[in-house]
Amino acid sequence: MKAVVKTSQAPGAELKDVDIPIIGPRDVLIKVKAAAICGSDIHIFHSSPGIMHMVKTPLTFGHEAAGEVVSTGDMVSSIKKGDRVAVETHFPCGHCYYCQTGAQHNCSNLVIFGVQTDGAFAEYAKVPEVVCWKLPQDYSYDLGSILEPLGVAVHGAMVEDVNGKSVAVFGCGPIGLFAIGAVTAFGATKVFALEVASKRLAMARQLFSSAILINPKEQDPIKTITEATDGLGVDVAIELSGNPAAIKQAFKVLKREGRISLIGIPPGPVELEIHKDIILKETRVHGSFGRLMWQTWWQVRNLLAMDKFDPLSVITHRFPLVDYAKALELAASGEAGKILLYP
Amino acid sequence: MKAVVKTSQAPGAELKDVDIPIIGPRDVLIKVKAAAICGSDIHIFHSSPGIMHMVKTPLTFGHEAAGEVVSTGDMVSSIKKGDRVAVETHFPCGHCYYCQTGAQHNCSNLVIFGVQTDGAFAEYAKVPEVVCWKLPQDYSYDLGSILEPLGVAVHGAMVEDVNGKSVAVFGCGPIGLFAIGAVTAFGATKVFALEVASKRLAMARQLFSSAILINPKEQDPIKTITEATDGLGVDVAIELSGNPAAIKQAFKVLKREGRISLIGIPPGPVELEIHKDIILKETRVHGSFGRLMWQTWWQVRNLLAMDKFDPLSVITHRFPLVDYAKALELAASGEAGKILLYP
Amino acid sequence: MKAVVKTSQAPGAELKDVDIPIIGPRDVLIKVKAAAICGSDIHIFHSSPGIMHMVKTPLTFGHEAAGEVVSTGDMVSSIKKGDRVAVETHFPCGHCYYCQTGAQHNCSNLVIFGVQTDGAFAEYAKVPEVVCWKLPQDYSYDLGSILEPLGVAVHGAMVEDVNGKSVAVFGCGPIGLFAIGAVTAFGATKVFALEVASKRLAMARQLFSSAILINPKEQDPIKTITEATDGLGVDVAIELSGNPAAIKQAFKVLKREGRISLIGIPPGPVELEIHKDIILKETRVHGSFGRLMWQTWWQVRNLLAMDKFDPLSVITHRFPLVDYAKALELAASGEAGKILLYP
Amino acid sequence: MKAVVKTSQAPGAELKDVDIPIIGPRDVLIKVKAAAICGSDIHIFHSSPGIMHMVKTPLTFGHEAAGEVVSTGDMVSSIKKGDRVAVETHFPCGHCYYCQTGAQHNCSNLVIFGVQTDGAFAEYAKVPEVVCWKLPQDYSYDLGSILEPLGVAVHGAMVEDVNGKSVAVFGCGPIGLFAIGAVTAFGATKVFALEVASKRLAMARQLFSSAILINPKEQDPIKTITEATDGLGVDVAIELSGNPAAIKQAFKVLKREGRISLIGIPPGPVELEIHKDIILKETRVHGSFGRLMWQTWWQVRNLLAMDKFDPLSVITHRFPLVDYAKALELAASGEAGKILLYP
Repeated sequence: MKAVVKTSQAPGAELKDVDIPIIGPRDVLIKVKAAAICGSDIHIFHSSPGIMHMVKTPLTFGHEAAGEVVSTGDMVSSIKKGDRVAVETHFPCGHCYYCQTGAQHNCSNLVIFGVQTDGAFAEYAKVPEVVCWKLPQDYSYDLGSILEPLGVAVHGAMVEDVNGKSVAVFGCGPIGLFAIGAVTAFGATKVFALEVASKRLAMARQLFSSAILINPKEQDPIKTITEATDGLGVDVAIELSGNPAAIKQAFKVLKREGRISLIGIPPGPVELEIHKDIILKETRVHGSFGRLMWQTWWQVRNLLAMDKFDPLSVITHRFPLVDYAKALELAASGEAGKILLYP
Repeated sequence: MKAVVKTSQAPGAELKDVDIPIIGPRDVLIKVKAAAICGSDIHIFHSSPGIMHMVKTPLTFGHEAAGEVVSTGDMVSSIKKGDRVAVETHFPCGHCYYCQTGAQHNCSNLVIFGVQTDGAFAEYAKVPEVVCWKLPQDYSYDLGSILEPLGVAVHGAMVEDVNGKSVAVFGCGPIGLFAIGAVTAFGATKVFALEVASKRLAMARQLFSSAILINPKEQDPIKTITEATDGLGVDVAIELSGNPAAIKQAFKVLKREGRISLIGIPPGPVELEIHKDIILKETRVHGSFGRLMWQTWWQVRNLLAMDKFDPLSVITHRFPLVDYAKALELAASGEAGKILLYP
Repeated sequence: MKAVVKTSQAPGAELKDVDIPIIGPRDVLIKVKAAAICGSDIHIFHSSPGIMHMVKTPLTFGHEAAGEVVSTGDMVSSIKKGDRVAVETHFPCGHCYYCQTGAQHNCSNLVIFGVQTDGAFAEYAKVPEVVCWKLPQDYSYDLGSILEPLGVAVHGAMVEDVNGKSVAVFGCGPIGLFAIGAVTAFGATKVFALEVASKRLAMARQLFSSAILINPKEQDPIKTITEATDGLGVDVAIELSGNPAAIKQAFKVLKREGRISLIGIPPGPVELEIHKDIILKETRVHGSFGRLMWQTWWQVRNLLAMDKFDPLSVITHRFPLVDYAKALELAASGEAGKILLYP
Repeated sequence: MKAVVKTSQAPGAELKDVDIPIIGPRDVLIKVKAAAICGSDIHIFHSSPGIMHMVKTPLTFGHEAAGEVVSTGDMVSSIKKGDRVAVETHFPCGHCYYCQTGAQHNCSNLVIFGVQTDGAFAEYAKVPEVVCWKLPQDYSYDLGSILEPLGVAVHGAMVEDVNGKSVAVFGCGPIGLFAIGAVTAFGATKVFALEVASKRLAMARQLFSSAILINPKEQDPIKTITEATDGLGVDVAIELSGNPAAIKQAFKVLKREGRISLIGIPPGPVELEIHKDIILKETRVHGSFGRLMWQTWWQVRNLLAMDKFDPLSVITHRFPLVDYAKALELAASGEAGKILLYP
């Protein structure tokens, strides 16, 4: 089969002919119908040091995926041939302290699909039964392939409710756009969206007419948000950019007793004014990574059922698998929304 | 001044000339601009035994009110002449255990405006400074007069969040309509509204196009809701009717680990299948009464700022104070939404 | 092997020779080392109508158990021969909505060990791998056999925290004693224990010197508790008796905004003064059944590690399996604490 | 009267004769019976830049105090002459957004007793009625004077419950010792106490026999705590030292999904490994400042009623007011526990 393979620690990747994965008794073989590009795929493609320590080559990467089940292991009972499924990226062990206490996504023995084991930029992918999420009949494979990043946005944004609260979303990449859609549907009262890339800002403007858009290069976000919230600041900040300056601003725009969700991963340590921004304001900070299995997937399903926001509108480009390099470079440029590959 | 006075324990009330209240140093005198009729006003008018034990005649009743401050006591510092205010019905003592722990609305020494002390169906009303809520500039007095019942709905419905959850609202009187509006704006995914009175059902239909309406006289609510929720039942039930049969149904339509808010007051004890409906399903039951001071008022303000729902649309009739009897009888008929009186 | 078998719908049970269970690929065969008697075992023995509709004879009953694993199915990976385990009574399907959202104990397809499938009053028992809880080295099998009912107490009592709170526990059977031990260790400030059976009251007195004991036949619990709490009532009531009169009292002794956990199963519907006891007081009611898999088991483990309370002290009698009838009658008498059977 | 007065921005303070404060209609005059020394008093005495920008000289400082009410303003209704009271340090305005929503201690117009207005190192002190906490009859004035710092510890430590959880307390000054006492009484399962000053470590050892003491100068706290928690880390970290190195360690010793309370104020910004320590571990960070009015005071009262921990044992020295300089220098040395002054 064709697969996009990281063959060495050097930048780049190759489209290669590789064997179709052989499944074990608890596994499922999926014919990949759509695979979306995530920021970490770009990091693997570019051999960023922050991720390459986890990668053992050769590796087929890609992990946001949906497809059709073509075969199942002997012990598989909940999934059958022909099922249409999306895939949870975090493979849990099922037996550690975290798996036993409702936190499989924080499993002590986590294996990350497409990073620590072969992934989905290929015609077929092997995954354990326990990470398959059956698609409702009316879901396309395109939609299936973006449920995982939608889950990142919803898990991080909704760690506490947003009912009637003001929210500032830092970063309008695909996950930021999903987060804006989620908090708006879930009853945020005033949503600020911050982004420096003009194309992304334009997408946010087009998709969310009620959001207040801020380009931090053109306006001081602290001043703007503080004034627009009667001098109090926002109830909630959601940080998706990973940019240290944005992280600092996200703390500054919060009101006292505000909540901040940190999701975007900064390149290194960040200096915080703990005194002013956390202690004296009694801020609540939530780190967020991945999604709950499967509470978040159900929450995403319920969000979509509300029909207030179409996540497919965040997809801007679609390519055949063979154009993976072009697609990955486009994704890295910040000039696109979500990009799909079709094996 | 003119006031609607309960002069004895017998049914009825009289429009009388009474003295304008004399305020104390911590009080405020309000020229009442709009007063809304609540279910408990009907009970006082009809001398229902459930409420008359609290009433000492003569009593000017009415408590959902907004008006203009015309004078203030010597020690009043946060309110001044000319302020436009709405009134919280629960007068707290400020010093008991509940007042000290953020639960003034559950004060041990609660005095209820218009029930235990003279109220708002009058040209002027005296209230303590601490129950005044300043109206934002763009609020009409009509809107001000219905903030208190809006708060009943929001406090009860939102005791836990409704994000992406299915909700069944039992009773489509004014507070039920407010509750439907609130949970819809705050991100409920599927809203069922139950009501036997056809005019109220028609109002719900007109105001909330996305709600699923059920007349329990015509359809089995348990069957209908269970089927519409994949056999699971709803996440949330909000009981506003006080009808024992509806209360029982509200427990039955809940999914396992569901939440029910009990707000409507039944006429007597209710027999519950605790085993099936609470223990085995691990149901969470929340009794709800009044509103938080002032968290709920702020939440209502944020709800209105979202502009997804206009509570004024629940008002169906407006009368001068002199027509109080007609207004009260109409309210009792179940043929109206919210009714306002103008002194 | 020897097993205590319910052979018909008639009262009683027989000690019979039956085949050792044949395990499937995901099962584990346990040599039962200790099995404790639960109230539901008594109901099965007595053929109570409330439970017999779930029982298909012949049935080996008994479900609170610990033992040594003697063989494992082909697909079992987390448990091996020689492991010492306790057993979770609720067998979850692993795939339904509840299993997917962290609520396996509320599984839609729940199978109850020793009630709906052969249980632990036998030399050997077959259970699925997923309900095995490995015993720490320093746990005896006796301790292992009572972890399940300890979990009932902890799950119900600790659904909300008890830090610095006053607590009234209704019923001092084994689960009531466990509940008193748990809330005391977890920081309750004043614990009331209510029981009508003098032997149980004596056990509570002996085990918990700081608890305030009340025999409702001799003292009015409402008056006593209200006076001992400055007229406010307790923060938390935990109802384990299932007695309708006690359930009603449990609501009455609660302070405003109090929390009640309903665990004990009443014989039929119970009439509640919803108006006074739930709505006006803004009571929170939690139904509780079973235990979380495995959060509660971990919480129990942490509780025991604190060494403030020895649950073995609740065991009053131990019998060989052959004396099952005597043991069950003694358990039914209310004259004993926890009773163990040794196959 | 005698008062310890900061007369200029220069280090030091003077014992001076000043006028007895004149109270307003909502104020209370207290004869100070005991005043405890807080870290911020040392900062004022030493003219630390971090606090002097808030100080307008001349200022009588000191704020942890208890005394007898000797006169009350005309509008005071809940406090009377002869009452024995402790004082909340945060004077709230009563009317801002935070005061209206149960967060008076985060009032937008906060005035801090003994920092922004004359305080308690004096024979008499003037405070508003609303910050008086009546002492139960069995409380000494010594106990009254340390309720405020006890509240700091309890508010910060108990922002989430500690039932059955492992806790690491960084810093064993008076507030650290209070925190250890609180979490132990409230059901923590394993408590680690970290401190570099040997006298403080010795106090912790003497007061809390069950705590595991760590001197980070002698043992690696990360290694020690990780090993002692089966490689998982602690559930809860409570940071009271304000030392940047300790703050960083506090994040490192946390398990995934752990909770950290930041209370101790660092001298400047702190560089955090947000990626590893907050995002990937899904850490919850709570900034904490002051105490809730009055939920925390009630919680402290309930804690003391449990009688598991005597906060008076944290007091090591008592001086007459005239020895203020000696007392303040001793407090600054880290060689003492809590120190009281008697005017």
